[in-house]
Amino acid sequence: MTAPSLRDKANRVAAERMCAARPTLVGVEPAGAVVPGMTPTTILTSGPPLAWSDYYGGQRHAILSAAVYEGLAPDLDTADAAIRENRITVESTHDHGCVGSVAGLYTASMPVFVVEDAATGVRGFCNMYEGESRKRLNYGVYDETVAAGLDFLRDGLAPVLAEAVRRAGGVPLTPLIARALRMGDELHSRNTAATTLFLKALTPVLLDMAADGDHLAVRTAYGFLADSDYSFLRLAMAAAKVSADSARDVAHSSVVTAMSISCREFGIRVSGTGDTWHRGPLPDVDCRLFDGFTEDDIEWMGGESHITETTGLGGFAQAAAFALQQYQGGSPQAMVDMNQRMYQITVAEHPEYRIPFLAFRGSPVGIDVFKVVETGIQPVIDGGLAGRGGGQIGAGILRAPMECFAKAAAALG
Amino acid sequence: MTAPSLRDKANRVAAERMCAARPTLVGVEPAGAVVPGMTPTTILTSGPPLAWSDYYGGQRHAILSAAVYEGLAPDLDTADAAIRENRITVESTHDHGCVGSVAGLYTASMPVFVVEDAATGVRGFCNMYEGESRKRLNYGVYDETVAAGLDFLRDGLAPVLAEAVRRAGGVPLTPLIARALRMGDELHSRNTAATTLFLKALTPVLLDMAADGDHLAVRTAYGFLADSDYSFLRLAMAAAKVSADSARDVAHSSVVTAMSISCREFGIRVSGTGDTWHRGPLPDVDCRLFDGFTEDDIEWMGGESHITETTGLGGFAQAAAFALQQYQGGSPQAMVDMNQRMYQITVAEHPEYRIPFLAFRGSPVGIDVFKVVETGIQPVIDGGLAGRGGGQIGAGILRAPMECFAKAAAALG
Repeated sequence: MTAPSLRDKANRVAAERMCAARPTLVGVEPAGAVVPGMTPTTILTSGPPLAWSDYYGGQRHAILSAAVYEGLAPDLDTADAAIRENRITVESTHDHGCVGSVAGLYTASMPVFVVEDAATGVRGFCNMYEGESRKRLNYGVYDETVAAGLDFLRDGLAPVLAEAVRRAGGVPLTPLIARALRMGDELHSRNTAATTLFLKALTPVLLDMAADGDHLAVRTAYGFLADSDYSFLRLAMAAAKVSADSARDVAHSSVVTAMSISCREFGIRVSGTGDTWHRGPLPDVDCRLFDGFTEDDIEWMGGESHITETTGLGGFAQAAAFALQQYQGGSPQAMVDMNQRMYQITVAEHPEYRIPFLAFRGSPVGIDVFKVVETGIQPVIDGGLAGRGGGQIGAGILRAPMECFAKAAAALG
Repeated sequence: MTAPSLRDKANRVAAERMCAARPTLVGVEPAGAVVPGMTPTTILTSGPPLAWSDYYGGQRHAILSAAVYEGLAPDLDTADAAIRENRITVESTHDHGCVGSVAGLYTASMPVFVVEDAATGVRGFCNMYEGESRKRLNYGVYDETVAAGLDFLRDGLAPVLAEAVRRAGGVPLTPLIARALRMGDELHSRNTAATTLFLKALTPVLLDMAADGDHLAVRTAYGFLADSDYSFLRLAMAAAKVSADSARDVAHSSVVTAMSISCREFGIRVSGTGDTWHRGPLPDVDCRLFDGFTEDDIEWMGGESHITETTGLGGFAQAAAFALQQYQGGSPQAMVDMNQRMYQITVAEHPEYRIPFLAFRGSPVGIDVFKVVETGIQPVIDGGLAGRGGGQIGAGILRAPMECFAKAAAALG
């Protein structure tokens, strides 16, 4: 077993790197143009990679639909054959600097936020929120409406955002996230303030663009972003991916650098074990479902938005976001208690992400797999829940399964 | 003494009216054009009215300066003479549907927000925040810079806002306030979220206006509002004035309808005693001063932004705004305790103003002077503090003096 002092030192380095990242939105580009290793026939999906035959339900349907949407196949059956014959390759988002929301589909033509830490050059990407509709590709639904929505992201929203980000000279995300934590967001299940602050940051250049003649396109793009309080989540995810990847590959470190869900399992990556996924069962969940749904309706389709929890946000900052109790259940005191417990399984406090109710204590950051195993405290995740047949059916607290941490500890020990 | 049941019923009516008001921003106009009783030679200032000779220090200087700014006198001495000879009249904001921030100066040419409850037609007005500079007329400072700032409010900001409000068809303020309470504001000393939400509500029409050719003016106005997290306070004050005035003149009611400070004293109005001011000494204060200042530097110049506390906001909703601890001092638990105590001196819980940390309990609203006297609990006020020689020097918790409530109780009893 690695001596504690060596591991402690490694964990300190990993946490410092994680906290030192200053993710900045530097562009909006088609995934095929910027995502490393992305080819015209690549499809990225959430979760530690599975054999194609293991994908089922909403996630499988979303992957096949993405192939059709991208024009790689005329229909789902043809797409299925093409995947089996490796003419279309299905790969994991995390291996390409990306993170997926629910099923998390990326194809080459889809626009992505390009987020970068200037000091290190580490980049992270995230595709765009499809809006408030229950029908979304990333929740396993695909039809003409969903396709039209994706077209709008590519042809309507992305060009306006790309130009705005260019004119603004980039948008530093750390100050927006830090400020949103003072305004009731935890940046996973609540992004209301961050979305509004992001729009505020871009409005001056959007006014210029409106004056320069793009008026209708600008108005439409603004309206779309402003109508979705979740718009910023994809930026929070890309920022978190940059922070998490900044902490990768520190020898002996037991700090978690990714937590990921597929339709089959939960997996974590740890700094000291590189790209290895330590896999376990799907998470436990305390949920609050929308009217008309029961727990039997929950279907796992993948999910990686808990990259936010991996970097001290989401469930690890829920005492910043008491308004969430209406959305995901739980009392304010339970939220405080859950948030407090996360300090027992982390190695640092984030210098920028501060929680007003905890007297501006920095959020707990850098999950140590050994602390999880020793305390028996599972990392908590504020998450949305997908339903059988597609669409979101609720939200709740997910608990990362202990098996992943035990396996990671064994691999390191 | 009035029978308790009669008073209870009257208080219920007053509180219901206060809570039923739905203030909407309907316009931006020069005070002289819309404020009832405002003449070209009227100057409005904060506080229960005093004899002219009783105004001193920053408030007196601000009144004289306002006369000069309005072109009613070439210099301060001439203005002083004109006031003594009643060629210029100094009156109380509250008697004209207005509320003043600190010294609270209104002259006829100054633009005001026009806020209205459509159901009752009750109107309230507030002039505009002068921006982040420590030099502001309402903090008792006047020079060429201050005058230029006031010119900008009239000639730069107001025309853009007036047109934007016209195009938007008015801006309902209750939903913005309710939402801001979920985003860390209490709408007195913290208006960060409300300012941002207000800008978000206007941005679509601002984009239209930018396209229509007002681009530079729109960009400048937007930048001014966006740079000042306090911008919304004046709208919160006007909205609160509408709510408070909706509860006026209910016979036998002991509900407070105004709390006001001049350079000399604190005064309250109570629903059942109409326009009578129940006066007492200046408030007690627990303050956190900016670097380099001591309590000896505090100078009272007036203030009426605690119209927000009068209607269930500010100190009465501080458990919504834990980030305020950095600004005005105090711990999160102390803020919760203070907020909780306010339920003991109020007669209702606001149906729209809900506090996430208190499990979305409605904020305490409708201060009952008898409850204040019986419990000995003073209403708490989140307030800014002015300094000798002008400018803001800090912030803190003010406590309304017991004498005012005892006098009001005696008048009613």
